[in-house]
Amino acid sequence: MNAPESVTDKLDLTKHHGAGNDFLVLVDPDGRWPVDAELARALCDRRFGVGADGVIRVLDGGDRADLAMELRNADGSEAEMSGNGMRCLAQAAVGSGLVRPPAFTVWTPAGVRTVDYRPGEQAGAAEASVDMGKPALGPDQPPEPAGQKARLVDMGNPHLVVLVADPGDVAVAELGERLQLRHAGGLNVEFIAVGRQRDAITLRVWERGVGETQACGTGSAAAAAAARSWGLVGDSVDVHNPGGTLHVDLGNDGARLSGPVRKVADLVVGVAELLGGARP
Amino acid sequence: MNAPESVTDKLDLTKHHGAGNDFLVLVDPDGRWPVDAELARALCDRRFGVGADGVIRVLDGGDRADLAMELRNADGSEAEMSGNGMRCLAQAAVGSGLVRPPAFTVWTPAGVRTVDYRPGEQAGAAEASVDMGKPALGPDQPPEPAGQKARLVDMGNPHLVVLVADPGDVAVAELGERLQLRHAGGLNVEFIAVGRQRDAITLRVWERGVGETQACGTGSAAAAAAARSWGLVGDSVDVHNPGGTLHVDLGNDGARLSGPVRKVADLVVGVAELLGGARP
Repeated sequence: MNAPESVTDKLDLTKHHGAGNDFLVLVDPDGRWPVDAELARALCDRRFGVGADGVIRVLDGGDRADLAMELRNADGSEAEMSGNGMRCLAQAAVGSGLVRPPAFTVWTPAGVRTVDYRPGEQAGAAEASVDMGKPALGPDQPPEPAGQKARLVDMGNPHLVVLVADPGDVAVAELGERLQLRHAGGLNVEFIAVGRQRDAITLRVWERGVGETQACGTGSAAAAAAARSWGLVGDSVDVHNPGGTLHVDLGNDGARLSGPVRKVADLVVGVAELLGGARP
Repeated sequence: MNAPESVTDKLDLTKHHGAGNDFLVLVDPDGRWPVDAELARALCDRRFGVGADGVIRVLDGGDRADLAMELRNADGSEAEMSGNGMRCLAQAAVGSGLVRPPAFTVWTPAGVRTVDYRPGEQAGAAEASVDMGKPALGPDQPPEPAGQKARLVDMGNPHLVVLVADPGDVAVAELGERLQLRHAGGLNVEFIAVGRQRDAITLRVWERGVGETQACGTGSAAAAAAARSWGLVGDSVDVHNPGGTLHVDLGNDGARLSGPVRKVADLVVGVAELLGGARP
């Protein structure tokens, strides 16, 4: 991607979160505002910038879909897909008038996804669901050092799901970093426990390029798929992320992620101002 | 303070940082937008809100000064004074046209302060200095568990300055929390080392109501005053905070804090939207 056209540019962004997984969204149907790694890092920096887990650029979908998504993580790296990011994108795209609810399609590097978006009664609140594609179960993995079972799951991005006695006891930052280094290209790591009713999972997540987050959509879907493969849950699962509860349905056509999404703020960011004051 | 007048209110804010110590500023000369503890917490929440170390409301100073400051920390508590917050306030107040640079006065709960503000050549960049009042040196304290020396310093807010071999080796989050609990009302804790040239201090800081921050203005002044009282530095000191360097001059009239300040973004926040999506 190219640098923005001029350092006097001002970007109109909105900030949203899904269960505390927060994103800055740039609605850019005409493709005028490329977001490179440096700009993404500066925007997402929580002290020297605005602060978010990632930044999403929404483009016209052309022949492929209604919309197209580009996503960068807080470290500037490109991501294939984010369930919560897609749900935040939906709120921004509907809010800007770019698409009409409830249903539309979004091209992502992981494939075309369908979104269902329902504005809530309260201002800024909505429910949004997105299809996450088919979880591709990999082989079971050695559960060391922390777990009882572990399995690789590909959701368009790579995950390692680790079954533990209590995610609250896991040193997520340290273990997540260590476990992802074992895999070329890295991966996202979910530490999960399963409720006795076979309908709920409690999860903590370490995201590649971000660190521990309040919630992860692809991670919630990967966790549900791994837990079902172990016979621990059924097809419909509440996934209790630290920042709130997401719901995963594991159908024949793939996983679907549902949950609340909230708008936080409208922002205008001067690119030159932001980059000039970025973290030294 | 009262709650905002209506949940349909929208707040116009700006985000700034001084050496990575970041503040949301609400310019409110007519006193229309009280910021209570709940709203401050929701605004400063870095995942479910906008994110900042604190939120500052700028009012007309009336008979007392050109401007008046109200400051709440990220946990919603009220603070007496913040050197970096005052420097961010200056950028917001000048940017809004409320005062003209370079010199103006600001009432704070710790007294009336003078500010000198110089816009930089680059958009969004400026240098600002603020008088911090006279450091009130307290008695030396037991240096346990981490330090070589320790001293209480009152800068309008309470500080404990701890001299250590290397601030980089200190478990700031754990020790800061533990040390401040020994003092009624809590305090801010600075872990410092002094350069051999007697003109520079390296500092890490744990702020009451916030946690470890990238920089602290009152902490930098307190550190300089304590180090001078121990004969380790002179009257003019560079204080290397994690987020950048601030300068402290220790004159007869009190300490003066100088350094860069940067604007990050203009924001519009819907109060109802924000509070409705706040951390569960």
